[in-house]
Amino acid sequence: MGKDGGSNAMWGGRFSAGPDAIMEAINASIGFDQRLSDQDIAGSRAHAAMLAAQGIITQADADAIRDGLDRVKAEIDAGEFVFSAALEDIHMNVESRLRDLIGAAAGRLHTARSRNDQVATDFRLWVRDQCDAAAEGLEALQRALLAQAEAGADWVMPGFTHLQTAQPVTWGHHMMAYVEMFARDAGRFRDARARMNECPLGAAALAGTGFPIDRAATAAALGFDKPMDNSLDAVSDRDFALEFLSAAAICAVHLSRLSEELVIWSSAQFRFVTLSDRFSTGSSIMPQKKNPDAAELIRAKIGRITGALVALLTVMKGLPLAYSKDMQEDKEQVFDAADTLMLALAAMTGMISDLTANRAALEAAASAGFSTATDLADWLVREAGLPFREAHHVTGALVARAEARGVDLPDLSLDEMQAVHGAITSAVFEVLGVHNSVASRTSHGGTAPAQVRARIAAWRERLT
Amino acid sequence: MGKDGGSNAMWGGRFSAGPDAIMEAINASIGFDQRLSDQDIAGSRAHAAMLAAQGIITQADADAIRDGLDRVKAEIDAGEFVFSAALEDIHMNVESRLRDLIGAAAGRLHTARSRNDQVATDFRLWVRDQCDAAAEGLEALQRALLAQAEAGADWVMPGFTHLQTAQPVTWGHHMMAYVEMFARDAGRFRDARARMNECPLGAAALAGTGFPIDRAATAAALGFDKPMDNSLDAVSDRDFALEFLSAAAICAVHLSRLSEELVIWSSAQFRFVTLSDRFSTGSSIMPQKKNPDAAELIRAKIGRITGALVALLTVMKGLPLAYSKDMQEDKEQVFDAADTLMLALAAMTGMISDLTANRAALEAAASAGFSTATDLADWLVREAGLPFREAHHVTGALVARAEARGVDLPDLSLDEMQAVHGAITSAVFEVLGVHNSVASRTSHGGTAPAQVRARIAAWRERLT
Amino acid sequence: MGKDGGSNAMWGGRFSAGPDAIMEAINASIGFDQRLSDQDIAGSRAHAAMLAAQGIITQADADAIRDGLDRVKAEIDAGEFVFSAALEDIHMNVESRLRDLIGAAAGRLHTARSRNDQVATDFRLWVRDQCDAAAEGLEALQRALLAQAEAGADWVMPGFTHLQTAQPVTWGHHMMAYVEMFARDAGRFRDARARMNECPLGAAALAGTGFPIDRAATAAALGFDKPMDNSLDAVSDRDFALEFLSAAAICAVHLSRLSEELVIWSSAQFRFVTLSDRFSTGSSIMPQKKNPDAAELIRAKIGRITGALVALLTVMKGLPLAYSKDMQEDKEQVFDAADTLMLALAAMTGMISDLTANRAALEAAASAGFSTATDLADWLVREAGLPFREAHHVTGALVARAEARGVDLPDLSLDEMQAVHGAITSAVFEVLGVHNSVASRTSHGGTAPAQVRARIAAWRERLT
Amino acid sequence: MGKDGGSNAMWGGRFSAGPDAIMEAINASIGFDQRLSDQDIAGSRAHAAMLAAQGIITQADADAIRDGLDRVKAEIDAGEFVFSAALEDIHMNVESRLRDLIGAAAGRLHTARSRNDQVATDFRLWVRDQCDAAAEGLEALQRALLAQAEAGADWVMPGFTHLQTAQPVTWGHHMMAYVEMFARDAGRFRDARARMNECPLGAAALAGTGFPIDRAATAAALGFDKPMDNSLDAVSDRDFALEFLSAAAICAVHLSRLSEELVIWSSAQFRFVTLSDRFSTGSSIMPQKKNPDAAELIRAKIGRITGALVALLTVMKGLPLAYSKDMQEDKEQVFDAADTLMLALAAMTGMISDLTANRAALEAAASAGFSTATDLADWLVREAGLPFREAHHVTGALVARAEARGVDLPDLSLDEMQAVHGAITSAVFEVLGVHNSVASRTSHGGTAPAQVRARIAAWRERLT
Repeated sequence: MGKDGGSNAMWGGRFSAGPDAIMEAINASIGFDQRLSDQDIAGSRAHAAMLAAQGIITQADADAIRDGLDRVKAEIDAGEFVFSAALEDIHMNVESRLRDLIGAAAGRLHTARSRNDQVATDFRLWVRDQCDAAAEGLEALQRALLAQAEAGADWVMPGFTHLQTAQPVTWGHHMMAYVEMFARDAGRFRDARARMNECPLGAAALAGTGFPIDRAATAAALGFDKPMDNSLDAVSDRDFALEFLSAAAICAVHLSRLSEELVIWSSAQFRFVTLSDRFSTGSSIMPQKKNPDAAELIRAKIGRITGALVALLTVMKGLPLAYSKDMQEDKEQVFDAADTLMLALAAMTGMISDLTANRAALEAAASAGFSTATDLADWLVREAGLPFREAHHVTGALVARAEARGVDLPDLSLDEMQAVHGAITSAVFEVLGVHNSVASRTSHGGTAPAQVRARIAAWRERLT
Repeated sequence: MGKDGGSNAMWGGRFSAGPDAIMEAINASIGFDQRLSDQDIAGSRAHAAMLAAQGIITQADADAIRDGLDRVKAEIDAGEFVFSAALEDIHMNVESRLRDLIGAAAGRLHTARSRNDQVATDFRLWVRDQCDAAAEGLEALQRALLAQAEAGADWVMPGFTHLQTAQPVTWGHHMMAYVEMFARDAGRFRDARARMNECPLGAAALAGTGFPIDRAATAAALGFDKPMDNSLDAVSDRDFALEFLSAAAICAVHLSRLSEELVIWSSAQFRFVTLSDRFSTGSSIMPQKKNPDAAELIRAKIGRITGALVALLTVMKGLPLAYSKDMQEDKEQVFDAADTLMLALAAMTGMISDLTANRAALEAAASAGFSTATDLADWLVREAGLPFREAHHVTGALVARAEARGVDLPDLSLDEMQAVHGAITSAVFEVLGVHNSVASRTSHGGTAPAQVRARIAAWRERLT
Repeated sequence: MGKDGGSNAMWGGRFSAGPDAIMEAINASIGFDQRLSDQDIAGSRAHAAMLAAQGIITQADADAIRDGLDRVKAEIDAGEFVFSAALEDIHMNVESRLRDLIGAAAGRLHTARSRNDQVATDFRLWVRDQCDAAAEGLEALQRALLAQAEAGADWVMPGFTHLQTAQPVTWGHHMMAYVEMFARDAGRFRDARARMNECPLGAAALAGTGFPIDRAATAAALGFDKPMDNSLDAVSDRDFALEFLSAAAICAVHLSRLSEELVIWSSAQFRFVTLSDRFSTGSSIMPQKKNPDAAELIRAKIGRITGALVALLTVMKGLPLAYSKDMQEDKEQVFDAADTLMLALAAMTGMISDLTANRAALEAAASAGFSTATDLADWLVREAGLPFREAHHVTGALVARAEARGVDLPDLSLDEMQAVHGAITSAVFEVLGVHNSVASRTSHGGTAPAQVRARIAAWRERLT
Repeated sequence: MGKDGGSNAMWGGRFSAGPDAIMEAINASIGFDQRLSDQDIAGSRAHAAMLAAQGIITQADADAIRDGLDRVKAEIDAGEFVFSAALEDIHMNVESRLRDLIGAAAGRLHTARSRNDQVATDFRLWVRDQCDAAAEGLEALQRALLAQAEAGADWVMPGFTHLQTAQPVTWGHHMMAYVEMFARDAGRFRDARARMNECPLGAAALAGTGFPIDRAATAAALGFDKPMDNSLDAVSDRDFALEFLSAAAICAVHLSRLSEELVIWSSAQFRFVTLSDRFSTGSSIMPQKKNPDAAELIRAKIGRITGALVALLTVMKGLPLAYSKDMQEDKEQVFDAADTLMLALAAMTGMISDLTANRAALEAAASAGFSTATDLADWLVREAGLPFREAHHVTGALVARAEARGVDLPDLSLDEMQAVHGAITSAVFEVLGVHNSVASRTSHGGTAPAQVRARIAAWRERLT
């Protein structure tokens, strides 16, 4: 049978051939769904307690089931449980062992439920935990970024557009940009968790049941907000897995962007950061070489997670209600994506915690390339009253003059400047240095150290 | 220049060659971003008003800008605006026309902003509207499903697993399963909308600005909850687009499942439903043939939307902060996915509203195939006290006997039944008919008409 | 170090910290690349023999290396080899063990090569084998389809468009459609194999080497057509993996289509086929129920393989030359996709071999629904000389008349027909039965049994 | 109707409602499939000529059809043709206009064909042309790369792994790596073209036809190698589109890698290349700033093309034979991907042709970072007979000494070297300079200028 209930041992009467090796290889899920053993046992425990409370099974049976499940869990935790592919999946493996341990009472556990609602409950519990784990991993990473931001709230570095120096920003500001991104990620995991926190248990195979079960009780026992409101939907739905994968994929985008920056920044040409030995690898013959392996691997993980999302979207496409066996493909994708995400978050947290920003190199790079040309233009608008476009024209002329002389803007004399436009005064020099530049960007969310420190303080509060 | 500010007309001084046809073809976005004209003008209006309120430009300039923008908008609405690829994008097209209309004051509009925060604001406003549109479209579809559910709350049909008849359910119950799915979809769009509702305007090119702008004012004027807290993030972030696409893809999964059912149900072999002429096509020579074209096309749309999601995830992979030109690829994907989703929702709403469920065919199919075998087994557990697994064994024997006789379960006599197991009484016949079966599934969310009607009532209230 | 050469044991001198658990978890590949052990040893054997032939190492060293590699392989084959995560990958694991076994000579094996060209060679050899395996699996499946086609070359069934009966076709014709699809798949794997059959070995880390190696010799020893012509490309290229995944994904489309048909055809409503017990699962209480689990699982596999393709395309996006650690993500995706494809092909071959087509049900379905209306229209054009569009009009009128009377087209009398159009003669009845219909479609590749048998005969020859 | 034949004008009799706006919006394809007008007319011309040659229509009709089609084509070419959404698609638009022009004979054109085989033929012809266009575009790009390679066959630059300097290579060698990649791409397009070059025309709706058509004749007239061998497959198959998209996606990977390098290389920190004004954009105020817009946009295109591939794989998943309306989603994806690819190839060709490699900066970067440490180690193995691993140890010590002194390897004296290992002689200096290093890598496909020039010469010959 599929997940519809019953025992595969009973196939004997029906199936003359029995599943051969190919069928077992493609059909059995125990190779991966054994990861759901804790959830499966928790679900069975809640179900048995409810059945007894409702008088559907006896309290003695319920006690035997509870104790038996405890022993099964102990065996699994101890690594002594022998998983059987012939028993197909975690549900049948646990139930079969339970029968060995407690006898006939085990058979009453499956009253008023089916493997269809059972697997939906188990998997939902597992994914729910991963939402929490992701949020925790993200918080740890945010803390690491905050620490970097605090250390370098006023360190000047180039702000890039198109990987070309555009304007000076601060190291702290750049780190805080990622704090914002990862906050949105955590928000997505929280929203997904809230939306998935409804319990499918009691939907039975697909239609609900005639037994007088108490779905609110099992839902509560398992930490769900409520039972799901439609039994067909309860066993057919894998939205929670898709939403988890979507949130993971967007988070992986952020991780890939930060990784890319770390790879570029640790090149010999940039030297903006030095990665720790822990998260890079070296060459036995080129001691200065530090390969940013961890950053590269994290950068790559978006492929894996996007792949998992595409896989499950494709699997779910066009499946009629209610349960179809196609849905068994859901777990490996989510397991792998969740493991990948948690590992990538941990590795990124380690890398960020360990890395050393090369303050001098950052400032030197920020100071090159007329990076305060925009400040000059803005000054001409703000202080000298030039229209925006004219201010740009004047600035271009001044930059051209500086370039011709092989100097940067602050190195031009006031006379040289006034030769280009008479409205320029010595006050202009206050905006031309990179420190002046960043200090001036005091708009909300701007790169001025005061702004950056305000954001850090706010985040410190939120993250404790 | 990229989106960093300035005028491409100034390239003359810098670029000896100028962009040729290939470059214009790959670089210009006006071909598609003209869809953002309303948002662009709204953003400029809010920005100009704020600049005047802060004393950064004069009120006279602000008035001229406002009036000029009104005229530009009127020209666009009237289809009289001539979009220019040489002016690259919507921002430059609008600003250039504004300069034609009001002269120098137009040049002051771009004070304290950049095309980087401008496009981020425009696009965010557009996507925010689409979240609302999706939620509305979903509500309309839910209403259509509710109407079907109400009409057939107690019509019996086969509940399938693996596309094999498993147990009887009701038409209303099946329709309501989709109401639940589309409710989760609406929830995702609402959550996405709430998360994206922060304003990037004022981030300027990437670093914020030294002008004394009031970002809270522009944010409020544009209906945002608050300004974004980090200027680098503000111009680099496309999470809102990715989250919209994710929600759309999951919604498209649901649409594809319902479409698949409609295609299968309208086959000659099923005949569960008859689609209206409006949403199917026929054959000039085979009058009974109704091709479910709309259902097939909606089924296919998940490909398109998943493709758009993959496209943008891939585009965003590994982009260093802040703005990179790669991000210009965001809009066409989202435009197409949003148009596709809205059209698919509308077509599905029409199809569901119009379709006729063939009650007799549904019930006949539900009654075939020993579909109440589970009810019999459950009765044996519940009423006769058999253990679950033994009840299954007895049921199997009864079904085999019925099959051998060429009848269904309710057609067996009590004697025949008692010959298999003595504990069976005449009360068993109360659960063997399909109507009895569905009526008995009264667990929360079960398929019993009373349950279905309770759900319908609850949704009626939520949707008015 | 990355794959650049050298020993990770030497990190001691360079890295104060050493990789901790997170780094090992994200960095080590031995957990999966141990599958490349045969390829790695074969590559080393060829390399050592070449080094000796070129006088770069002594023949004694080469002999020791060869014998040592044999012992390593024997240990791995016997399951006695202890893989070490601290040694990171298969290359270091093998080399380290070789050093244990033969001492210093092992150190000379790595002369004039690097892990970069080594892994490229190993993986290419592995993927090359999978191309062969896929082609073989496809041939087996084609044979199973041919057998079905031969048995039912003239069995009539409905030909569907939009899952609506369009015209009668034959079972054999339908089976042969898949033979054509899978032939194209095999062609893609063959083309991919031919294109990838160039040897990266000797590219060393990325630049080639100054040792007088003979790349043609190692290429030939490993069955490659030639060495790759550019060393940077040799270590950077993963096209062969992408092309394999593309071919696999397209093949998976075909498998999903056939699976979908099997699921629909085995529904109670269609009953076109009966799946064997071996490739379906049953219900302990509903004996007539056969869940097409294998078909559903195969249908789902396109998700997994498309996911792998997307993953690797995403990973490879934007990687600068030459080797980046991101590329380590290539193997798990390809391993999983290849395993999935081979299993799906085997299961589909078994399912097709075992399935029983229900000839009577097929013919009954083909005969319903005015399926020969097109034949009638074509007859009116061909024999009565009506223009195409008028013929359609007349046919529509005749079908409407038959429908009104509740009969099918062949049941109308000649009088009734002539009342609609006088040019109709009794010869028309020759095309109205479904057997006449299919027999008449004798155009090349048409569904006439004679055509189908000709195609079967041609394929029989090709597949032996 | 679907694509099954007949006229949608006839819906009137059948459909009381008629397609409303939503249905027309989702159903009509003329908005995009008008791009197939040339192919549609060519197909019709070939079909009509064959019908006449076979005596199925008169020569007079065929002549009228041919002349009429010429007029339709002329109208389309002149932009005078009015496409109608009510007529759904290109086939009906052309046929309807043909009827206006030539009357009843137009009705005979559709004899023995259907829109199903018609669209399959049209689209296949279109994709076939794109394979040729891609191969041409790739050749042009290869020529541009060859020109760069010739100019700088011996210019030294850093060879990177992990974006860390590993060993010196030559500019020419690096350019030639891409020549190899793009050659494989061209091979994939050629193979795809060969595989798709079979003609579906004559498959009719799905079953073939009873008219005595000559499919070999139409196939030949349209440049196909042969007619397809199974009519069901002929109308169901979209492999050709999937294979085209796969080849395009892999090609886009290569384009993204080269683009990424150009973006990084044109950063202020690298300055390896200067892009031309034509393919970059500037800043009105920062004259030194050149944004590599074209490179960024090309880098992004892999997202778009991968998205299209995923879209079509998803659309085709699980479609039963033969034609389903879902397949109408094929064209927009392929149109967009093909346009994207051709534009990206053209832009990359322009960018490569125009760019200036900064020879001095490349050589300076290559000379830094002990980039010849591997050469030293290899020398110790080759000339001093040290085992590989010991040679690495000695090299590490020498590099450490140089680093401590703040010099590079060639700056160490022989005495200093011999202090580390006595076997070192003055001959070692021959391998320590970057020019010596690259010159020494003479293995096949290595970076030695002689090798590079040999490869260039071979490619020059292949590309003329």
